[in-house]
Amino acid sequence: MRYAVIGTGIVGRTLAAKLASLGHRVAVGTRDVEQTLARTEPDGYGNPPYALWAAEHPEIELTGFAEAAAGADTVVNASLGSASIGALTAAGAENLAGKVLIDVANPLDFSNGMPPTLDPVNTDSLAESIQRAFPAARVVKTLNTMNCSVMVEPGRLAGPHEVFLCGDDEAAKKETAELLAAFGWPAGSVVDLGDLTAARGTEQLLPLWIRVWGALGTWDFNFHVQRA
Amino acid sequence: MRYAVIGTGIVGRTLAAKLASLGHRVAVGTRDVEQTLARTEPDGYGNPPYALWAAEHPEIELTGFAEAAAGADTVVNASLGSASIGALTAAGAENLAGKVLIDVANPLDFSNGMPPTLDPVNTDSLAESIQRAFPAARVVKTLNTMNCSVMVEPGRLAGPHEVFLCGDDEAAKKETAELLAAFGWPAGSVVDLGDLTAARGTEQLLPLWIRVWGALGTWDFNFHVQRA
Repeated sequence: MRYAVIGTGIVGRTLAAKLASLGHRVAVGTRDVEQTLARTEPDGYGNPPYALWAAEHPEIELTGFAEAAAGADTVVNASLGSASIGALTAAGAENLAGKVLIDVANPLDFSNGMPPTLDPVNTDSLAESIQRAFPAARVVKTLNTMNCSVMVEPGRLAGPHEVFLCGDDEAAKKETAELLAAFGWPAGSVVDLGDLTAARGTEQLLPLWIRVWGALGTWDFNFHVQRA
Repeated sequence: MRYAVIGTGIVGRTLAAKLASLGHRVAVGTRDVEQTLARTEPDGYGNPPYALWAAEHPEIELTGFAEAAAGADTVVNASLGSASIGALTAAGAENLAGKVLIDVANPLDFSNGMPPTLDPVNTDSLAESIQRAFPAARVVKTLNTMNCSVMVEPGRLAGPHEVFLCGDDEAAKKETAELLAAFGWPAGSVVDLGDLTAARGTEQLLPLWIRVWGALGTWDFNFHVQRA
């Protein structure tokens, strides 16, 4: 399969590397290839500049948003939530039409300082906003409730935990669930929450996730639904 | 200890019965005692009318909001979120002052149909609203992230899971954590998320809780923070 990963941050890189390791052809999309490669400083979280990372991943191509999406069977949105609609608009509705669009982003709004709030929230979600903006894309929301290291290596945690999935296209959800299985998610750990409005719930987990991160002092965790 | 439980629904009853079983003196507060006792029909969830339940719990007094709060050392808010400020106002700020006020309610707004949304949300929480309205009360938010059967019997689930706690008064949180231990919550399962703004996170778990309930077909579950 050919994947486009929209976003050059740590989440996009981690997913791109995992997809490439599974034998897929992967293009990372960015607004301005030259500008992305010209950066020499770590980002705000201490992650190395893209060019350094790219040197270790020569099999992963860096292209403009539209070129990445046009050449892909499946598109992964790993951009900042506040930038997602703009990035996907630049990718081009015609390059998303009919394709599975896996949205792992969260609508974190840092404009009021820390901790971030959510925008949209409550009666809407980022995933629904994307689906409305690109009605011919087959949006699946998943993986947005955990750190990216856990996304691609669920076995790093000490016991069972789950990844949530929702969307309006059943076949798109099935394809995404198969990809999650390839990432290492065991049978039964992929929880289908139903239609895309469930993204309101998974995106609204973020404020709690941030507080748990603060309480534990690590982001190496995920939520498990403990049953009777 | 003397407890007042504000709210005659299934959550209030479950907490009142547990507190009484631990040897505490418990008064349940309601707006109109006669009206509450006069009901003969089950509520919308099929729970029996209060009078039937009360007949099995003769040790638990039913009084007005103010009388219940005035006679209590600690107050538990188990009213509907949309009714909480009104119920506590009727209980009387003077009867809450200096007391631990354990808020287990959620600001579920059913006015737009199902599923409910949250009001307040995102930049505020019900717990913070209560603290602002009653600045002399010592508000602790806890237990709002699970069904009431799990609140008072954490051992009913098949493995570890957690209860979150937050508030601005450290001594009030310590007292509440001791009560949770008496409810059966093991050491380490009570996670202190910090100040009361963390209630935004635990209240925003509700939209996900509702979707997980729908996916599993049971509310007999709780969230566990799975670590590496």
